[in-house]
Amino acid sequence: MRLSRAFQPTLKEVPSEAQIASHRLMLRAGLIRQTAAGIYAWLPAGLRVLRNIARIVREEQDAIGAQEVLMPTIQSADLWRRSGRYDAYGPEMLRLKDRHERELLYGPTNEEMITDLFGGAVKSYRELPQVLYQIQWKFRDEVRPRFGVMRGREFFMKDAYTFDADYEGAVKSYRRMMLAYLRTFQRLGVRAVPMVADTGPIGGNLSHEFLILAPTGESGVFYDAALEEQDWLSEPVDIDDSASLAAFFDKVTHFYAATDEKHDEAAWAEVPEGRRREGRGIEVGHIFYFGTKYSESMGISVSGPDGAPLYPEMGSYGIGVSRLVGAIIEASHDEAGLIWPDAVAPYKAAILNLKPGDSATDAVCERLYAAGAEIFLYDDRAERAGVKFNDADLMGHPWQMIVGPRGAKDGTVELKRRATGERFELSVEDALAKVLGA
Amino acid sequence: MRLSRAFQPTLKEVPSEAQIASHRLMLRAGLIRQTAAGIYAWLPAGLRVLRNIARIVREEQDAIGAQEVLMPTIQSADLWRRSGRYDAYGPEMLRLKDRHERELLYGPTNEEMITDLFGGAVKSYRELPQVLYQIQWKFRDEVRPRFGVMRGREFFMKDAYTFDADYEGAVKSYRRMMLAYLRTFQRLGVRAVPMVADTGPIGGNLSHEFLILAPTGESGVFYDAALEEQDWLSEPVDIDDSASLAAFFDKVTHFYAATDEKHDEAAWAEVPEGRRREGRGIEVGHIFYFGTKYSESMGISVSGPDGAPLYPEMGSYGIGVSRLVGAIIEASHDEAGLIWPDAVAPYKAAILNLKPGDSATDAVCERLYAAGAEIFLYDDRAERAGVKFNDADLMGHPWQMIVGPRGAKDGTVELKRRATGERFELSVEDALAKVLGA
Repeated sequence: MRLSRAFQPTLKEVPSEAQIASHRLMLRAGLIRQTAAGIYAWLPAGLRVLRNIARIVREEQDAIGAQEVLMPTIQSADLWRRSGRYDAYGPEMLRLKDRHERELLYGPTNEEMITDLFGGAVKSYRELPQVLYQIQWKFRDEVRPRFGVMRGREFFMKDAYTFDADYEGAVKSYRRMMLAYLRTFQRLGVRAVPMVADTGPIGGNLSHEFLILAPTGESGVFYDAALEEQDWLSEPVDIDDSASLAAFFDKVTHFYAATDEKHDEAAWAEVPEGRRREGRGIEVGHIFYFGTKYSESMGISVSGPDGAPLYPEMGSYGIGVSRLVGAIIEASHDEAGLIWPDAVAPYKAAILNLKPGDSATDAVCERLYAAGAEIFLYDDRAERAGVKFNDADLMGHPWQMIVGPRGAKDGTVELKRRATGERFELSVEDALAKVLGA
Repeated sequence: MRLSRAFQPTLKEVPSEAQIASHRLMLRAGLIRQTAAGIYAWLPAGLRVLRNIARIVREEQDAIGAQEVLMPTIQSADLWRRSGRYDAYGPEMLRLKDRHERELLYGPTNEEMITDLFGGAVKSYRELPQVLYQIQWKFRDEVRPRFGVMRGREFFMKDAYTFDADYEGAVKSYRRMMLAYLRTFQRLGVRAVPMVADTGPIGGNLSHEFLILAPTGESGVFYDAALEEQDWLSEPVDIDDSASLAAFFDKVTHFYAATDEKHDEAAWAEVPEGRRREGRGIEVGHIFYFGTKYSESMGISVSGPDGAPLYPEMGSYGIGVSRLVGAIIEASHDEAGLIWPDAVAPYKAAILNLKPGDSATDAVCERLYAAGAEIFLYDDRAERAGVKFNDADLMGHPWQMIVGPRGAKDGTVELKRRATGERFELSVEDALAKVLGA
């Protein structure tokens, strides 16, 4: 994309209500615009990030055998009356009526609907387990929306649901999802640490929140640094084998990790001092086993091995896709602007033409651009070099390919790595190879 | 995907309110389920079709330089008050209030929001033209929703908007979009014929509906068969050149095509008799130039060449993505079930294992499946051959790869083309080559 044509309006001044870095930087870099309180439009560069995240989330869900569906945003109130949650859910539920005065709501989550869809489709325990997920817009009417997309009202979320014939099956499903989550976050270029969360009346240890370390996080967190150092992508886990899943799960949960609510000073003291990490964390995912809560309350069963009705054991598993855009920025930015991890960046590199109109400079830039018009943002604007440097730093492309008249004459490009500030003087071919190979 | 694991519940009986073939077949083949009146959940196979269509729509929008954004589903009533449409829009608009009693609505279309976003970003006529689009869920509260996804209430739509400095620019934008639409529909495997539509007070000929010929269409249509025979994908058009765009547009509009509302018997009589096509059509797209209607009413201008405010000339351009799923089926099915065009099919082929448990048959099926687990649906169920034949015909995969014990012993596969019924006796390699090369 040529920046002269791109719909990416940068801002010098941001509204004072943008209190945190991710909110300010998303507005300044032209990724989003607010259209109502807590509701945002995604501009092209922001949408590219959102979609990169969604793609990685999807690939890792698919990898554990989850099947993607897409449920509507508007749900019937009657569906929620069946589980008893319509009255129980507070004012965060956006309730509405259609022209025939039928009560509807904008889905804040989908346990009821997926349980109902499951019930209409699956008749026998032999068809279990089932793992269904969607990536869809949801609405929670926060009383005081703030922090941009981190606590918006209309938000994009991956929600998965598992259905198993028994507790042992549910545990396997839960552990598979734990693996998918760890791999997802690692691929996104952030480390989200799983921490035991409340299970409510169900008890047990099958509820984890995933938190990204960032100073603006809503919770205090304490964890063993060893958790960040694991390579979950190469961790050998056979997702069809209970023992392999159990070994993996033990490895994850054996390291200390807790939010302040669950913090245990005695256990913390046993973590070697050099590995203790303490700070604040942003919740970006939550996995939760809740047994037969919805299947029983909604009367959804399959026929069991003995022919009697069997209420599936269920779990639900969320990842805040739009929230992740903000959370990644909170964890990865500096004074000058965004610093995108490679996997989620809207463009792999910016091409900075320091002298548009100079034929040698233009020629080198066009050669670079021709190698990846889809994945490079070419700053071809008639602006001063300083403006281009600042905008490229603000937008946070992983690489900057800087082309001036002097280098162009020699056929060289100055390559800058945004995250580290490292600079390389390279031929056009070597610069491309480094950027595309990275 | 193995059918034994797939969440694709087929139905023998469909509800009596499913009056048309697409609605019945989408329910029977397990593509959708209704969750409330006119509101549907998309099951995995249906979602794959929806996403294939969206991908092709997106690629052709990108090809004419349109930039993708994503606007929220919930809009502020105040935004629509600025254009005067909040009160003018009828009961099809789903209006609601949040917890603070602020008036909101579920967007039925986005002219107001995109004009506002444009105004916040573009300051000078030099930055024009701009072409922005999104593919997003919308809601229209139809008084009597019916025909499944063809006339649902929550629907998936591509809506694009163009902003030009003058009428000549707007005409070029309109013609580019005409080209993108013809190419989109051709790639989808259907022919949608552009027909002049009402322009309201604006006049001129810059409003076209695109209709797919199908017996259940809502409009009568009359057109020259030559329109269906053009190959728009290889039509040489330089989208940056006014003369080339004009020549292309003349070519399109020179053939007779009209809905019954606009039908002109005298002009019809001039179409050679053998080329007259008469029938019913389903509207799947609409392109529309409306000048400065929104930019003026909302007070959105850029600075013009003389420094004075310039109100951009606008157009809007819709494609009903979820409606297309139904429309394609209306145009492409038979008594036995769906007949997917290759480009939109959820799977390229079904693998029919006629004797699961027979080691030679299983081995051939697994070889086939290993060549494309993502794009083949492997019917590995313990069902009779007749059930498998019926389900494969119902689901409408372009190809069926039928493997029985006799063929398996010789290493051969029976390949069936769903659309024509043609059958081929081929080696595993040749069968795969034919399916993957098609």
